[in-house]
Amino acid sequence: MTEWQDGKVARFEDYLVGEEPLEIRIGNRPISVTMRTPGHDLELASGFLLTEGVIKAVEQIANLRQVITRENKRNVVRVDLARGTTIKPALLQRNFVVSSSCGLCGKASIDAVRVRGILRPNPDLHISPDVLCLLPDALRSAQPVFGRTGGLHAAGLFDQTGKLIALREDVGRHNAVDKLIGWALLEKRLPLRESILLVSGRGSFEIIQKALVAGIPFVACVSAASSLAVQLAWEFGLTLVGFLRGERFVVYTGEERVELSTR
Amino acid sequence: MTEWQDGKVARFEDYLVGEEPLEIRIGNRPISVTMRTPGHDLELASGFLLTEGVIKAVEQIANLRQVITRENKRNVVRVDLARGTTIKPALLQRNFVVSSSCGLCGKASIDAVRVRGILRPNPDLHISPDVLCLLPDALRSAQPVFGRTGGLHAAGLFDQTGKLIALREDVGRHNAVDKLIGWALLEKRLPLRESILLVSGRGSFEIIQKALVAGIPFVACVSAASSLAVQLAWEFGLTLVGFLRGERFVVYTGEERVELSTR
Repeated sequence: MTEWQDGKVARFEDYLVGEEPLEIRIGNRPISVTMRTPGHDLELASGFLLTEGVIKAVEQIANLRQVITRENKRNVVRVDLARGTTIKPALLQRNFVVSSSCGLCGKASIDAVRVRGILRPNPDLHISPDVLCLLPDALRSAQPVFGRTGGLHAAGLFDQTGKLIALREDVGRHNAVDKLIGWALLEKRLPLRESILLVSGRGSFEIIQKALVAGIPFVACVSAASSLAVQLAWEFGLTLVGFLRGERFVVYTGEERVELSTR
Repeated sequence: MTEWQDGKVARFEDYLVGEEPLEIRIGNRPISVTMRTPGHDLELASGFLLTEGVIKAVEQIANLRQVITRENKRNVVRVDLARGTTIKPALLQRNFVVSSSCGLCGKASIDAVRVRGILRPNPDLHISPDVLCLLPDALRSAQPVFGRTGGLHAAGLFDQTGKLIALREDVGRHNAVDKLIGWALLEKRLPLRESILLVSGRGSFEIIQKALVAGIPFVACVSAASSLAVQLAWEFGLTLVGFLRGERFVVYTGEERVELSTR
């Protein structure tokens, strides 16, 4: 690698962000391939199956393991479901991976989340603006790879006092969230009714959908949220905060969980 | 929306980043659903079909139109292929959308690009560091939506002198690139042998793959590139620049196209 800085040229070796495909199989049947940063792959596979609606509880996973391919790569995770667990054939079809909840309009997308029987997010979680503003720095300083490469998305779970509970990184923001939720699933910590999810970057529909499935009542993102993310959060009563940077943020929905008049 | 800034609370209406699903159909057959920012949908569908290897030239598109659904939403694009155009059944299968080029390791992913018969990127394109450093500001100031919402990715095409040729925005960076390449396809400007592609955010495998298909010899990104993106760029002789911010950038591959000693 060659660095150019204000006319000066330097050559150096640096860490690159890892990116490799991961295939998730149910038994012998591949159901998804996603580009991800290797690491926490069992969590990623578990979280993906939960947030995409294939399974509803950790008990439905009978066996979970990494398959070593001929090339000696660890790019396959095989999940065996518990006896008696049935999955809808539709879930195994084309397009499943991109978004199982996509209809042909935003309303259909939201309807698809609604029919999944998601519980109302916890109304008793509250956080003060001062604590909220500390979260991005806490996330950044806990990221093991970001400091070296600048190229990884992060998702972190915090409690109401601003304590970091868990953190995962990935080239894909949705993968970082699936790893985090997969961790909680495997640790039997679901639903995450006392947790705040912070994601680097933007807040999309898919992030809110995954948070709802995991029972998370509060999502904060460093950049903007999309229109459909806001609609979905509003519909389910989830708190969605955006532009969380420095001493500023915006509350899109669920203002009652932010103690706006504490100063 | 409620804004909290250093203890002060303000309420205001702001623009949100649009996000809706788009279904792409070949004839009556849906082949992909992607979450995108509405607008330039015909370009998005065309670019997607090209960069994912379904078609190879604009002449293979006989008809291209937006389908209005019952809900009066413009969230479907129907593409009719020209008589005699055949597509591999494998392209219409599961997982196609996520990445048609995914194997079970990075090498397989790169091999999948190689068999598509991609031409060597133009060796005669050169750019000076000073011009390169101007591109991010040029992109940002030309973004119609970003300034208002802070939430959209952008992809821009520039010539060697730093002139902006075209710009597209989307909630998904890969969609912004597909819209741009779809525009070039429909305008019969492919291959883009004289163009530099600048993307906001990170450089992933998928962005480099799309650039190669469009004949773009030079990709710059504002953040880091992934390991697999760098491998793919190196393999095909494409120039990949990262961390393009202020008076600094890093050249991962293809240094010969950057005039490093011009000052």
